[in-house]
Order: sequence, then C-alpha cells, then structure tokens
Amino acid sequence: MSKVLNEKEIFSTKNFSVKEVEVELRNKKRASYPIVEFMKEVAIIVPITDDGKLVMIREYYPALNDYLLGFPKGKIEQENSMEAANRELQEEAGYKAGKLIGLGGLVIDPRHIRHKTKIFLAVRLVESKLEQDEDEDIEVIKVSFEEFDKLVGQNKITEARVIAAFYMADSYLKKHSIP
Amino acid sequence: MSKVLNEKEIFSTKNFSVKEVEVELRNKKRASYPIVEFMKEVAIIVPITDDGKLVMIREYYPALNDYLLGFPKGKIEQENSMEAANRELQEEAGYKAGKLIGLGGLVIDPRHIRHKTKIFLAVRLVESKLEQDEDEDIEVIKVSFEEFDKLVGQNKITEARVIAAFYMADSYLKKHSIP
Repeated sequence: MSKVLNEKEIFSTKNFSVKEVEVELRNKKRASYPIVEFMKEVAIIVPITDDGKLVMIREYYPALNDYLLGFPKGKIEQENSMEAANRELQEEAGYKAGKLIGLGGLVIDPRHIRHKTKIFLAVRLVESKLEQDEDEDIEVIKVSFEEFDKLVGQNKITEARVIAAFYMADSYLKKHSIP
Repeated sequence: MSKVLNEKEIFSTKNFSVKEVEVELRNKKRASYPIVEFMKEVAIIVPITDDGKLVMIREYYPALNDYLLGFPKGKIEQENSMEAANRELQEEAGYKAGKLIGLGGLVIDPRHIRHKTKIFLAVRLVESKLEQDEDEDIEVIKVSFEEFDKLVGQNKITEARVIAAFYMADSYLKKHSIP
C-alpha cells in the first residue's frame, strides 16, 4: 500500500493553499508532490422544475476569461451542506427547493487537488430570490434534458462536475420516484 | 461584459503555478482572484472492449491518500493529444486502441483552476503493454456500463472527469455506430 508520510504548507491564498506531500509508494520508494488544498467544500445543485427543465446559470469565470453554462453552486460556509445548497439556489437561480436530495460527493483531479464537492438534486422549486454576491455576473437559463445532452455533445457544457452532477441526477431519477 | 485586465505569477511548482488575476466586472468594479494554472493538458481515455466492457484502473492518489477507480489518463507531452492518449492507454491499462475518437474538452473548477482535459473514446482494443512510470501504483479492472452506473450511485466512483467522460462516451455511442 502506498501512504502519505507527511506534508507541509508551502504557499497559501484566501481560498486555497499549496502543500508538499511526501509519500511512501508500494515499492517502498519515497516521492513528494505539490498539491492544492481548498479551504472549503462546495455544493452544486441540480435544480429541476416541475415541468422537467434544468435550471442552469451562465456565469463569468476569471480563470478562463469566459462565460460558462453550469449549475448553481457555492462554498459551504458556517452552515450544513443542505442549507448552503438552498441558499446558493436562491442567490444564483432565484428558486428555493421544496425537496433537496443528496447524491454524494465528487473530487476533481485527485492527483493534484484536495477538494470535495457535494451534489444535490433540487425539486419542487418555488420562486424565492436572495441577494447574490454583487461580484457575480450571472444569467439564468432553463434547459431540457435533451438540450443538455446536445450541448455536451457540442462541447458547449464543459465543466466536469456539471456533467457528472447531471449524470448522477438523471441516474437517480431513473431509479427513484420523487415522493 | 466582465474581462481580465492583467495577471501575474505569484508562486510556481513543477506542475502548476499560482497567478493573481485582476478582472473588471460587468458592473465596472475591479476585483482580483488567485487561480491555479496547470502547465500541461491531460488526456483521459474511455477504453471499451469489443464485448462492451469499460477498462478502468484503480490507482493511488497522494492528495487524497486513497485509491480511486478511474480511466487511464496522463499529461500530454511533446506529442499530439491522440498519441498521448494511445501511449497512456498502453502504459496504464495494457491496451492499444485501433480507433480513438475525440469527444471534446473538459474544465475543472473554472473559478479557481485553468486546466484542460481532452476526452477520447478508445475502441478496437488490442493487448499492448508499454512500461509504466515506476511511481504509479495501478490495478486494471473491467466494468460493465451497468456496474459503472451502480458504482456512481454508491459514490464509489467520485472523480468528476471520470463520470463526465463516461457520460460523453455513452452519449456518443447512443448516436453513432463505430465504423
């Protein structure tokens, strides 16, 4: 078994730190790797209206200097992850969920990044708007499951967690009836 | 429209650097964010055997100090992305693809990370082993589409790009016959 021997922080920002992780590999050799550790977990919400549309948002991302289509999401602050999900849903998309269903967690690039995203399916939506962070540049768009699939095929939806979250929600809905 | 005004590197490692990105938001306010920029793009390969099984690998990830189930992947070096995909497929999974189909690109956490992953569907597999990096601690496992779906539902497959890549491959196969 490979295992971590120790790690130390070598740089930090307000959102993440960089750590040097030293491991002992299965072959007993030692190696060390720089990794990025994010301070807070994130909730991503897949909101589905009563008539079966996905509520998506088009948002500006400085790292890419571009607008991308995705789901409401945000950092989990001093609250539980379900409260965070319903807060972000209201801030970013203008809906509140009558029912939120946890679908599990996702990691991203686990070779380099230590970060967890919790996925929620949100149904029985009612309009409810909370003030959004003024720095956010967001547009709300409703998309059918068929349109979502087509947009992925055209490489117009490209965020890995967004596609994974859709898959998880769609797979859940095929197996469960929403009470 | 929001836009990037300028950026500067504030830290770097062998695999990634940290940059401070200054943007002008749609409301004309300025803000700056630290982001992580990876040096190299990555190829992820979804290999499917002639009898319809996914070839997956179970690999150790120092950042999580755990083993995760995923697809063969690796950095695109001084080669084109399709060559990289077939090289990684042979190094990590012990197969060579008779046909590789590009399914587009994915980003991960675009608020904080500048990185691109190219997804390839690999079919007409033949056994062909290239020496793998000796630091890699990998086991090859074949999984049906139904088992993949079940493992996602049980939160035993958790890498966002792996689930997204599977969705893209499955969606492609439902619309195209492989020539």
